[in-house]
Amino acid sequence: MPVHFNKVTIIGVGLIGGSLAKVLKAKNLASSITGAGRSRETLELALRLGVIDHMGQGPVHAVENADLVVLASPVGTFESVVREIGPHLKKGAILTDVGSVKGELVRRIEALLPAGVHFVPGHPIAGKEKFGVSEATEMLFQGAKCILTPTKNTDAAALKAVTEVWTAAGANVLVMDPELHDKIFAAVSHMPHIAAFAMMCAIAELNTGTEDYMNFSGAGFKDFTRIAASSPEIWRDICLMNRENVVQMLDRYLFSLNRFKRELVTDDGKRLEKHLKIASDARRGLG
Amino acid sequence: MPVHFNKVTIIGVGLIGGSLAKVLKAKNLASSITGAGRSRETLELALRLGVIDHMGQGPVHAVENADLVVLASPVGTFESVVREIGPHLKKGAILTDVGSVKGELVRRIEALLPAGVHFVPGHPIAGKEKFGVSEATEMLFQGAKCILTPTKNTDAAALKAVTEVWTAAGANVLVMDPELHDKIFAAVSHMPHIAAFAMMCAIAELNTGTEDYMNFSGAGFKDFTRIAASSPEIWRDICLMNRENVVQMLDRYLFSLNRFKRELVTDDGKRLEKHLKIASDARRGLG
Repeated sequence: MPVHFNKVTIIGVGLIGGSLAKVLKAKNLASSITGAGRSRETLELALRLGVIDHMGQGPVHAVENADLVVLASPVGTFESVVREIGPHLKKGAILTDVGSVKGELVRRIEALLPAGVHFVPGHPIAGKEKFGVSEATEMLFQGAKCILTPTKNTDAAALKAVTEVWTAAGANVLVMDPELHDKIFAAVSHMPHIAAFAMMCAIAELNTGTEDYMNFSGAGFKDFTRIAASSPEIWRDICLMNRENVVQMLDRYLFSLNRFKRELVTDDGKRLEKHLKIASDARRGLG
Repeated sequence: MPVHFNKVTIIGVGLIGGSLAKVLKAKNLASSITGAGRSRETLELALRLGVIDHMGQGPVHAVENADLVVLASPVGTFESVVREIGPHLKKGAILTDVGSVKGELVRRIEALLPAGVHFVPGHPIAGKEKFGVSEATEMLFQGAKCILTPTKNTDAAALKAVTEVWTAAGANVLVMDPELHDKIFAAVSHMPHIAAFAMMCAIAELNTGTEDYMNFSGAGFKDFTRIAASSPEIWRDICLMNRENVVQMLDRYLFSLNRFKRELVTDDGKRLEKHLKIASDARRGLG
């Protein structure tokens, strides 16, 4: 029998939370969906759009009797939210999340939960340049990877249920160690975001003629810096929560940049080309 | 009367040179087009594709009697090519280029030319991820900027003729000081390319599990590093020829990255968010 929840509560009804709500409805995985979050306006919009069926008076009220609770607010809020809702989760409830950081955060959330509540940490690799519930779509996860990072404490039945939800969403579910997850995403996502943000800072902080300079940015520059348009608040939290790995990758990046700088300063065309080629070959291999 | 050339010679019949040749033909701006370049195969392909009408036996032979000569090979080759063809250019011939570096290079080329040959330095801001003559299209420059960087020595009639060619190609022609050009493109193109190449090096040189890591790179990472797939040889030359400006911009970028690193290491969420917001606002303003 396919998984079905009587009541699902989504905390943070934005692009990801809203899209997951739409999947749950489209695939008939939930009888009713309750939304919670900081912004009443967002929740009212989600209600109007039919993304959720009810809005809770605060998270504690919203999770009452919920069979599945999804943390889809910025990762920086997870701990305080779990601290607040933890004692009010019903016995046997499944708690899952969609945060971009796992590792340490998973351990802290586990420590905050009462016995009988089953936490299944998750991270769907999906997103768009635009965010907010009005951008939500049940197609968002189609063909995307969704990483689940169970620990030794994770309940097998709960893991199976959450896997079914993401599979129904069209995602390819992968299971991974939470610490490895954070190392990988520091390398392929978190540090590159910092690099793009830093690029925009460097250009924005040019004291003279900045506007003129920007007029000459081509498609390459726009591609390169696109991810710098992401939410400062969300990325502050992600980078701080994974800061050991992010700093380690930043150091590798700084090493590589300084090597290029040295090759330029010393006019070392041979080494310069060698390292440009390593990069170019690697990027071409990526498709 | 619209500009018309009896014989045009294009040195380096790749994406840019080939596309310009196609424009010249499509707009009937040239009676015949001769190609020259290092690779006989490329020239034969260009001939077969009808992009050029003739192929020269080396550049000296190719420029004989040409009214317009276009340098479209990698910028690193310009000086030696001009040294070779200079004495053989016909009196009154126009020499132009499509190089991404101006400044110093423009002065050096001017110094190599005999009296009576008119140099008009140019830089069309166009390109694609793919290169080579088989990718050439007369639409490449449609709506693109083309920067011309005349000096006090530039002949006014020659400047006008080259302007007409690029206008016919559909480009918006802008006139700019060669030194300013190099500062601007160090900021919005050359240094960002180094940054993308360095990112790919940092990831490619991760000693363990590199392939696994790459499997998790999303659309953001691919956008961010797309320009790192560019030709190592071409970018070696561009960066070395504009190295003072590139190193200056690299230093600004390193400053910005190190500031983010310090904010992460000291867990300074307030400053971190402030700088992320400067970047995010600047990027959103870019569209």
